[in-house]
Amino acid sequence: MQQRQQRIENILSKHIPESSDTTNKTSSQLLEAMRYSTLGGGKRLRALLVYATGEALNADLSLLDPPASAVEMIHAYSLVHDDMPIMDDDDLRRGRPTCHKAYNEATALLVGDALQSLAFDVLCSKQLSPLQQSNMVKTLAVQSGVFGMAGGQAIDLESVGQQLSLDALQKMHELKTGALIRASVRLGALASEYTDLHTLAKLDNYAQAIGLAFQVQDDVLDVIADTETLGKTQGADISLNKPTYPALLGLDVAQQKAIDLINSALAELDDLAFDTHILAALAQFVVKRSH
Amino acid sequence: MQQRQQRIENILSKHIPESSDTTNKTSSQLLEAMRYSTLGGGKRLRALLVYATGEALNADLSLLDPPASAVEMIHAYSLVHDDMPIMDDDDLRRGRPTCHKAYNEATALLVGDALQSLAFDVLCSKQLSPLQQSNMVKTLAVQSGVFGMAGGQAIDLESVGQQLSLDALQKMHELKTGALIRASVRLGALASEYTDLHTLAKLDNYAQAIGLAFQVQDDVLDVIADTETLGKTQGADISLNKPTYPALLGLDVAQQKAIDLINSALAELDDLAFDTHILAALAQFVVKRSH
Repeated sequence: MQQRQQRIENILSKHIPESSDTTNKTSSQLLEAMRYSTLGGGKRLRALLVYATGEALNADLSLLDPPASAVEMIHAYSLVHDDMPIMDDDDLRRGRPTCHKAYNEATALLVGDALQSLAFDVLCSKQLSPLQQSNMVKTLAVQSGVFGMAGGQAIDLESVGQQLSLDALQKMHELKTGALIRASVRLGALASEYTDLHTLAKLDNYAQAIGLAFQVQDDVLDVIADTETLGKTQGADISLNKPTYPALLGLDVAQQKAIDLINSALAELDDLAFDTHILAALAQFVVKRSH
Repeated sequence: MQQRQQRIENILSKHIPESSDTTNKTSSQLLEAMRYSTLGGGKRLRALLVYATGEALNADLSLLDPPASAVEMIHAYSLVHDDMPIMDDDDLRRGRPTCHKAYNEATALLVGDALQSLAFDVLCSKQLSPLQQSNMVKTLAVQSGVFGMAGGQAIDLESVGQQLSLDALQKMHELKTGALIRASVRLGALASEYTDLHTLAKLDNYAQAIGLAFQVQDDVLDVIADTETLGKTQGADISLNKPTYPALLGLDVAQQKAIDLINSALAELDDLAFDTHILAALAQFVVKRSH
């Protein structure tokens, strides 16, 4: 995994060049802020899911680089916009000042906008066939748009201070976090020649379960971890009066729910005819992480 | 032109469904705000350029609908984000309250984000071949990203209160407004089978000239038109202390520059071997418009 994390870091850095390499072609501050918001770590869970899925299905590594970069760019853009004062108003991300704190709000807005465009640009890389590119763009666009991530963000905003049912909370997270995690697994599969629908459905179930587990664990960590470990403000959900799994279920039941979801994700991998140990390790990582 | 304006309005409306048609699939407020920001008029210059270019090159109308929709969605997203208080802070657009005024700032942020995703989704329409989709996504992503529109916006922000040279002002506008106008002409051509590079270069020159003329005329109108005709706040550039063509050149020279640019755009069309009268009419429209 560390090798893949290093690989994606290098590729992202190549896609967002240092401003000195692009004299007069654009705003050097915008490029610098895009690098600031995209590089320098993060768990890279989404890129790792692209690689793990694609490699399990025998896809060439070079075909996985574009979708792995694209999902990380979409993820980075969503964090930059989500942290802005008009959204969650967070000052810390990955242990550093958020983009609008390090630069300014207008720059943060444009960083997110430009990262989204770049994600689709990168998916149109020559090593992928036009059909692969088209399928990948469609998948990523739908899963990050109004019927995916952005729609989930909107429901999240409207839910502040509201009493949500468990079903409504789950629906919101399926869009807000789950859609991009499912897209990551699908993009990995699209880079392969694999077309067995039964297997692809199982991988999709796996992705859906870990996506939800990820969010439950995020809510749990918001309660139990300290700000330093988290790299973002601890207790932010509570102070924003957001509905969370611990608030609805209690902390113990929420923690158990995350574990149950991971076990159901692992069960989906059980009888697949290829090596799924990295996918399994990623599922475990979702609940074992401390930030 | 009115027929095409009506056509694009209908197609955009189909792509962004009424919220009652999508019960529980996403936030109904987000969908409603997306419709508010995209439908109900506007000049549709970018969509008209897609249609005019494609039809001149014998492209099937159905192949022009996806790129025409996509450029209007990108344009609408850029207006929504640009009008926000952290950017230009405008209250009026097309004679109506801007998105963040009619809804709120967080919704405006998500409207822009989701419209951008939807533009790329729409380009992956089945009537286009995978290769056409890929070429179109690449073109639109590059021209709207950090080396296109978003980059131009960033330079614009950094220029507030600065004394820009005419060259620097032109560079900024080539990215901020020009890139999407050039993309519109290129997308129209990509929907056709036309591949003569000499002709495509002339169409690109045409697009570049009208893109710049459009911005010069925008600056001129900001000085001479009243708010009611403009549909947005008159004098906004001046009150934001933005560098403009009239400020740099004087009003008369700026008005003449717009006319000269249109004449050079028309000259590019002169010896093309197909019917360019709609492209010519669109060029004229850019300087004759009153808003």
